[in-house]
Amino acid sequence: MREEKISELRQEPCTKRWVIISPQRARRPKELEEKEEKVELPEWDRECPFCPGNEDKTPPEVFLISGQRGWTVRVVPNKFPALSSHITHIEVIGIDPFVSVPGGGKHEVVIESPLHNVTWGNIELGQMEMVVSCFLQRYRALREDERLKYICIFRNHGERAGTSLIHPHSQIIATPIVPEQIRTEVEEARRYYDDRLRCVYCDVVKSELRAKERTVLESKHFIAFTPFASRVPFEIWIVPKIHRPSFDLIGEGEAKDLAQLINELFGALYRGLNDPHYNVLFHSAPLRDSCEDYYHWHIEVLPRTTIPAGFELGTGIYINTTLPEDAARFLRQYLKD
Amino acid sequence: MREEKISELRQEPCTKRWVIISPQRARRPKELEEKEEKVELPEWDRECPFCPGNEDKTPPEVFLISGQRGWTVRVVPNKFPALSSHITHIEVIGIDPFVSVPGGGKHEVVIESPLHNVTWGNIELGQMEMVVSCFLQRYRALREDERLKYICIFRNHGERAGTSLIHPHSQIIATPIVPEQIRTEVEEARRYYDDRLRCVYCDVVKSELRAKERTVLESKHFIAFTPFASRVPFEIWIVPKIHRPSFDLIGEGEAKDLAQLINELFGALYRGLNDPHYNVLFHSAPLRDSCEDYYHWHIEVLPRTTIPAGFELGTGIYINTTLPEDAARFLRQYLKD
Repeated sequence: MREEKISELRQEPCTKRWVIISPQRARRPKELEEKEEKVELPEWDRECPFCPGNEDKTPPEVFLISGQRGWTVRVVPNKFPALSSHITHIEVIGIDPFVSVPGGGKHEVVIESPLHNVTWGNIELGQMEMVVSCFLQRYRALREDERLKYICIFRNHGERAGTSLIHPHSQIIATPIVPEQIRTEVEEARRYYDDRLRCVYCDVVKSELRAKERTVLESKHFIAFTPFASRVPFEIWIVPKIHRPSFDLIGEGEAKDLAQLINELFGALYRGLNDPHYNVLFHSAPLRDSCEDYYHWHIEVLPRTTIPAGFELGTGIYINTTLPEDAARFLRQYLKD
Repeated sequence: MREEKISELRQEPCTKRWVIISPQRARRPKELEEKEEKVELPEWDRECPFCPGNEDKTPPEVFLISGQRGWTVRVVPNKFPALSSHITHIEVIGIDPFVSVPGGGKHEVVIESPLHNVTWGNIELGQMEMVVSCFLQRYRALREDERLKYICIFRNHGERAGTSLIHPHSQIIATPIVPEQIRTEVEEARRYYDDRLRCVYCDVVKSELRAKERTVLESKHFIAFTPFASRVPFEIWIVPKIHRPSFDLIGEGEAKDLAQLINELFGALYRGLNDPHYNVLFHSAPLRDSCEDYYHWHIEVLPRTTIPAGFELGTGIYINTTLPEDAARFLRQYLKD
C-alpha cells in the first residue's frame, strides 16, 4: 500500500464555495500523458469571418476603434445571439410552477485585433489597452438600457473552453435578469460586510498581499493571485486594490494598468502552460443594485486543463489536483522582468 | 438579414436557476458537424484494472455481490481517493478569512459488471437491479459514519464526462461537509414549502405527469422527464412519485422499478444519441438534516454533447440549444415497447 498525500477541503471566503485540493490525484497516469501540438496560425485567414476584408460576414458593427490602416478593435452583434435585441417587452410569463421570460437582451462580439493569430498571451500592450477601453465603453453604453440587469464580459480561448472561432475575440452578454450566481456572490459579500463592516474581497486582497505565497503579479492598482480555494489548476483572480463594486467605475489610469497586468499575466500563462485553453470572466455588480459597500468587481481566469465530472456537477465541489501555492510559484517563473 | 427564432429565459422551479433556451444557436455549423465513430470493445481487457483476474490492481473490496462464476458487482476504495478514510479527525483549521478542513471522507468505486464492454445503455436488467441494490447498501452503510454529512453517487460515462476508464463503474464520494449546491437546493425547496405547504418536486412531478410533453418515460414509482429549464440538450431527471427526502428510504419494489426505468431510459439514450457521454448525479438529503417535508431525492442525467463556456461559468446561466419538449419527443421514439 503506497503512502497517501493528504487532501484538504478549502472554503472560498468570498463565495463560501468548498473545493477539494487533492494533489495526490495529479499522479493519475492519464493526466500526465497529455501533450498537445500547437499549429502555426497565419496572420490572416480568408475563411475567418472576423478577419479584415470579411466584414460583410458579420452583422454591421455597433462600435469601432480605427487605426491607421482600417479598424483596430471592432464590436459586432453576435450572428447567433443567445439573447435578442429585437425583443423589447420583458415580463414574466408561464404557468405556475414554470416561469419564463422572453429572451431579450444583448449579445455582442468584441473582435480584439485585425490579426488572426494573436491572443492575450502575445498581444501588443497598446492593442490590449484598446481592448480594455472597448470593454469599458460597451459596458457604459449597455448599462443605459434600463431593461438590462446584468452585463457579463467573457472570453473563451480554445476548444476546451467552448470556442469554435480562433480569431481573438471576447463576448458581452447583457441579461434582463440577475444571474443567480451573481446574486449568491453579492449575498455572501453582504453577509460578510454585515458581520464586520468590511468588504470580503478587500480583506482577501490584503491577506494575499501580505502572505505573497499565492500572488502571481502585482501592479499599482491590481493584484493577480491563485485563489486559496482554486477550483481548477492555475485558476487566477485579478482583483482591483481599490474597492469598487462595478467594472465601469474604474478610471483611465486603472484601465491602462489593467491592460498591462493582463499582458504580463497572460504572457506567463502562454509561456508556462503552452497556450492553455481558458475562460476569462468579469464579475461586476448588478446594474440596478449598486451594492457599493460590499461588492467588489474582479476578473476570474479558469484554465480548462481538466474536465469537471459528475462529482463537480452534482455537488458544486471541484476537485483540484494542483495546490494554488504551487501554481503561483510556477507562473511567477514565467513573468518577464 | 435572416429571421431569428426567439430565445427564452426559463427558471427551474426547484432551484430558481435560470437557463437560456436558444434553439436558433443550434444552427451553428460547428455543432452539426460532430459525428463520432464508436470503437467495438472486447468483453475482457487484460490491461483493465476492473476486469476479472485483475482484482489485485485495485485496493481490496469493501463490498461484493457474488454470482455463479465469481463476482457480479464489486465495490472498492478508489485508488486515487479525493477524500481519505485515514483522516479521522475533522475540524476547521486555517486563519481568517481562509478556512479549511482536512480531507477526510470516503471515495469508493462501484464496478458494475465483470464485463468490460457493457454500459447502462445495454446492460441486462438483472445486472442493473444488482447495481441499484449495491448503491442502496453502500449508502446505508456509509451513512452510519457520523463524521460524514453527505453522500454523492455519480457516474461519468465517456471522456467528455470526465472519465478515463471504460469499464462500467460508478463512484460514491462521502463528504464531511454539506456541498453548497445541495444547501442551496434544500433552501429553495424549503422556501417553496413554507409558502405553500407543498414539496416543489411533488408539484413538478404532478405538472409533468399532467402535461406529458416533457415526459420521456413513466413507471409505477418514477417519472423520467426533460426538465422545463434543462441546462443542456437532453438533460433528464428521474424523480420518484412518492415523496421521500433520501435515496436510501426507498423500498425493494421501488429499487427494482428504478432499475427497470434506468434500463429503458439509457437504452433510448444509447440508441437515439449514439451512446452519448454523460454524467449521472444522485441528489439526496444531507445525512444529518432530514428535511423530511420539503426535500425530494432524485437523479439528474446530464449528457455532455456541448461544452459550457465563459458565460455559463461566469453567471451560472446555461445556454441550451435544444428545446426540452423536442428532446423528450425525440427520445420517446427510441423506447422499446
